[in-house]
Amino acid sequence: MHVIAVDAMGGDNAPQAIVEGVNQALAEFKDIEIQLYGDEAKIKNYLIANERVSIVHTDEKINSDDEPVKAIRKKKKASMVLGAQAVKEKAADAVISAGNTGALLAAGLFVVGRIKGVERPGLMSTMPSFTGQPFDMLDLGANAENTANHLHQYAILGSFYAKNVRGIATPRVGLLNNGTEKTKGDSLRKEAFELLSQEASINFIGNVEAREIMSGAADVVVADGFTGNAVLKAIEGTGLGTMKTLKSAIMNGGLKAKLGAFLLKDRLKGMKETMDYSSAGGAVLFGLKAPVVKCHGSSDAKAVYYTIKQVRKMLDTKVVEQLVDAFDPKEEVN
Amino acid sequence: MHVIAVDAMGGDNAPQAIVEGVNQALAEFKDIEIQLYGDEAKIKNYLIANERVSIVHTDEKINSDDEPVKAIRKKKKASMVLGAQAVKEKAADAVISAGNTGALLAAGLFVVGRIKGVERPGLMSTMPSFTGQPFDMLDLGANAENTANHLHQYAILGSFYAKNVRGIATPRVGLLNNGTEKTKGDSLRKEAFELLSQEASINFIGNVEAREIMSGAADVVVADGFTGNAVLKAIEGTGLGTMKTLKSAIMNGGLKAKLGAFLLKDRLKGMKETMDYSSAGGAVLFGLKAPVVKCHGSSDAKAVYYTIKQVRKMLDTKVVEQLVDAFDPKEEVN
Repeated sequence: MHVIAVDAMGGDNAPQAIVEGVNQALAEFKDIEIQLYGDEAKIKNYLIANERVSIVHTDEKINSDDEPVKAIRKKKKASMVLGAQAVKEKAADAVISAGNTGALLAAGLFVVGRIKGVERPGLMSTMPSFTGQPFDMLDLGANAENTANHLHQYAILGSFYAKNVRGIATPRVGLLNNGTEKTKGDSLRKEAFELLSQEASINFIGNVEAREIMSGAADVVVADGFTGNAVLKAIEGTGLGTMKTLKSAIMNGGLKAKLGAFLLKDRLKGMKETMDYSSAGGAVLFGLKAPVVKCHGSSDAKAVYYTIKQVRKMLDTKVVEQLVDAFDPKEEVN
Repeated sequence: MHVIAVDAMGGDNAPQAIVEGVNQALAEFKDIEIQLYGDEAKIKNYLIANERVSIVHTDEKINSDDEPVKAIRKKKKASMVLGAQAVKEKAADAVISAGNTGALLAAGLFVVGRIKGVERPGLMSTMPSFTGQPFDMLDLGANAENTANHLHQYAILGSFYAKNVRGIATPRVGLLNNGTEKTKGDSLRKEAFELLSQEASINFIGNVEAREIMSGAADVVVADGFTGNAVLKAIEGTGLGTMKTLKSAIMNGGLKAKLGAFLLKDRLKGMKETMDYSSAGGAVLFGLKAPVVKCHGSSDAKAVYYTIKQVRKMLDTKVVEQLVDAFDPKEEVN
């Protein structure tokens, strides 16, 4: 049985979307048990499942504008903190939250803790591509500054994830750089390129450019947290803006445009589904002693369900235990 | 009279697109004179204009895969190098090329030369936004590594350009960062934030995120060359990929989808025009003693025409002379 702690109070649609996602997951997966942390009365409004689920009541929660590290330290009874604490005390195997990202990162680092040997856990998402083949990218912003050694570790972490959780036999690992030639980039990239070239445990394919990552350039894209964050946000902003512009072009286009859009509806929907990557789950703070996963703040029940599915897969494949062995063979997983 | 040197042999559609763009510009602007550098016979195949235009014949040209600095040093008679040389010798006021970007940057730095006081000229483009109000962003990759002092200079350079060439009275200058709060970012961003806050000559509005820059967050976005390059390419890759996916969804969607697309044609075209920023001209290597401007390699005649129009505006407004004064009041422009 996999025990998953879920912060019921985080995100824009909490607790409804969270609890409904939990209902779906419990109905489908018989090998998971869910601990819901938050306001018991509110949670009960939506909870249908009645077995393999428990509620740990708390009135306290972390708000989206709370200062992360301070919030973790001061709000000891916040739903997110209690969930992380359960993982630390081995009462749960993993924790999920759609709340304050910075606070969840802090809870991951300071409560759950790093795998011995992993210097700086990275935030990793499985992102959509135009080819239909998603890719994993890290660090997406857990760190503002990274060294070449961190990037080296991200390559190993991402490769483990793509192999174990996504089932890619030999994931192609690329280093995000400003050109594909091996001499490209700043000193950080040049040093990281050398380390990755010498790393026998991964399939390093060289540098990849931000223009190509959404066209299937690599299965795992390694970036420092600052650049990874900027690229992620540029992709999001461009994608959302394009869709919004298309929508408004149709809406302001009179009957002809509306009829055109109606005829194209199925195709546009199919396109949206190709680009929808909520089915890949949430963003993992990877390199910790247990799965700590962030759902998007705007997650609906479906996204929560998929994140639980993702965490179950991570627990099934023992990807964290394998990482512990890889980084320090003598260390036992918590 | 503004004398503009044009590399007729650079880019995918040279010399035809280049010469046709020159024809258009000469017909419209009576205060410019064009020097075309390249293969005289080939240029003459397309040249209609017969006044205020001259051809400087050369057989040599820089290829897109030539190593930039080496090419500039070895191919002394290449069309691009001769154009830059004309600027250095004051036979021309500016140079335009659609050829090898790295080589043009090298020609700008080593032949045309930096403005005294500008440490690292930055590559700047006027980019489209979903609001219809474009923004200038630099450095887009002239440098792989930048200091806070460089970023400080980019803010001043970009602000000068937005004010003089784009006519924005008080351009809003934003620092590209991983969050909007002033404490965000790595040490480079924190240091740059302080310098920009204290710079009285610009309207610094604080940090901006990559998600918001295409939604009108600032008129000038300041970035280090590595991040700026990655964000530019992420925007390009996402935009092009989305359009390609939309097109293929329509093409593979049968009669119904094709009819829908036909009805939506005008709206899609309008949308494409909003996002088409070739009318803003090319990418300027800004901080040099004269305008050195890169047209996109795939430029058509229209894009070349707009780049000439942009360079004319830069010369008209004497933006470079003003920069020379701003960075060193005692220095005369070349």
